[in-house]
Amino acid sequence: MFTHDFVKRIRYGETDQMGYLYYGNYALLYEIGRSEAIRSEGITYREMEEKMGIMMPVISVESRFLLPVKYDELITIRTKLEDLPGKLIHFYHEIINEAGQLTHKGEVKLFFVDMKTNRRVSVPDIILSKFKPYFDS
Amino acid sequence: MFTHDFVKRIRYGETDQMGYLYYGNYALLYEIGRSEAIRSEGITYREMEEKMGIMMPVISVESRFLLPVKYDELITIRTKLEDLPGKLIHFYHEIINEAGQLTHKGEVKLFFVDMKTNRRVSVPDIILSKFKPYFDS
Amino acid sequence: MFTHDFVKRIRYGETDQMGYLYYGNYALLYEIGRSEAIRSEGITYREMEEKMGIMMPVISVESRFLLPVKYDELITIRTKLEDLPGKLIHFYHEIINEAGQLTHKGEVKLFFVDMKTNRRVSVPDIILSKFKPYFDS
Amino acid sequence: MFTHDFVKRIRYGETDQMGYLYYGNYALLYEIGRSEAIRSEGITYREMEEKMGIMMPVISVESRFLLPVKYDELITIRTKLEDLPGKLIHFYHEIINEAGQLTHKGEVKLFFVDMKTNRRVSVPDIILSKFKPYFDS
Repeated sequence: MFTHDFVKRIRYGETDQMGYLYYGNYALLYEIGRSEAIRSEGITYREMEEKMGIMMPVISVESRFLLPVKYDELITIRTKLEDLPGKLIHFYHEIINEAGQLTHKGEVKLFFVDMKTNRRVSVPDIILSKFKPYFDS
Repeated sequence: MFTHDFVKRIRYGETDQMGYLYYGNYALLYEIGRSEAIRSEGITYREMEEKMGIMMPVISVESRFLLPVKYDELITIRTKLEDLPGKLIHFYHEIINEAGQLTHKGEVKLFFVDMKTNRRVSVPDIILSKFKPYFDS
Repeated sequence: MFTHDFVKRIRYGETDQMGYLYYGNYALLYEIGRSEAIRSEGITYREMEEKMGIMMPVISVESRFLLPVKYDELITIRTKLEDLPGKLIHFYHEIINEAGQLTHKGEVKLFFVDMKTNRRVSVPDIILSKFKPYFDS
Repeated sequence: MFTHDFVKRIRYGETDQMGYLYYGNYALLYEIGRSEAIRSEGITYREMEEKMGIMMPVISVESRFLLPVKYDELITIRTKLEDLPGKLIHFYHEIINEAGQLTHKGEVKLFFVDMKTNRRVSVPDIILSKFKPYFDS
């Protein structure tokens, strides 16, 4: 399994009048989590688009809200891959607050599109090769 | 079953560099859908908070992305209740584009909290009474 | 002078924990105002980009916050042109609340870029011809 | 003069279909800049609200867009105070890209409100005392 942690502070503009992180802003946390996870392996999503001509549209999101997250909290976005990517890449995210509590779980599935042909393709080899070591037994 | 339609235009600031509505902005569409659905029955979420002291935190979201939605498209947010609310209220949303295509499906579950006691409660009677006629056989 | 009004409701996700419309969300109101002002004259910004190959980057914004705007308020975005566009187009915006109070003033200046050459150009004739009648004495 | 730098990466959800950081998202950068500037002096805006009962509404914003900022760029938010705060606090922000270019200038003026009385007050002494050393001749 692959795991990556990234720390982010919650901003005023990300809260709502309930005083909590607005439920619509978790998707940005997932985006931060997956892009930083890929970056930690030496690839960036920007290069994927610009150099490999591959984009990764989101196909589904599932979110579970366990505890509210408040203004100015320093949260940890934990991003996991439980399986090697293939036709899809499936990210698991956990949002952990300063007290170490699990506040939120999110799952995001994305696929790969060749921007020249506009067709679905499998995970590029360079991505696969980066994550393979985490799954070899 | 209860169904309500609300029409909204997609703004530049809601797109991303892929040229599509950013996947994180669908949660605002769900919010618009459910608040306008309630308003169509003569209640507003603002009154629920201010007058009844009830707030409705989100407990889970499930989203399926079928087709991209583009800048300036006039989309229909279709909001459905398939069951009477009880301990939870479960909204089903469909995003339909100008060509009449179903582009997106979302499900949002919320619960009810008494803001004075900060405890979970069941759906307020006034909400229940509004939606009951749609489910009587 | 050209004036155009557009009505919009403030959503939960647009508020912050102060309970007001977040100050960063006024820029979206300006965008709505100017795009609907142009649309009211039979042109859309989408067509400008797609058919005329003209984009309009923002060069400056000035905002003055007079009164807070609250959740669920139905605001009027008043958009004015006080001069004919030339090298720049200069929009004046007023945000008026349900009680008829002026809550906010914004000014946005944009320029015109030919997307093929990536160079600044003057206002396209088709835009100029639409707005000219409002300024003829 | 007081100066503080904070580094932030631009996310996909913060771009628009022009491929640039959306003009409405700079306000969040200013918020990050001023809150981190205050934090660097040992105070947080969260404490100001929660412990001192002081909130800081924005009264005006002025923004100048010099160069586009692109997806995934690591920008520096430079935040300056050129004068001691009094009835107002006046932040100057510069957004500097990875190449060291000044891409954007923003000015934000805020005032101080006593949350109990809902009245304007002058800058709290604790804030003033933190910034005073930067302005003593």
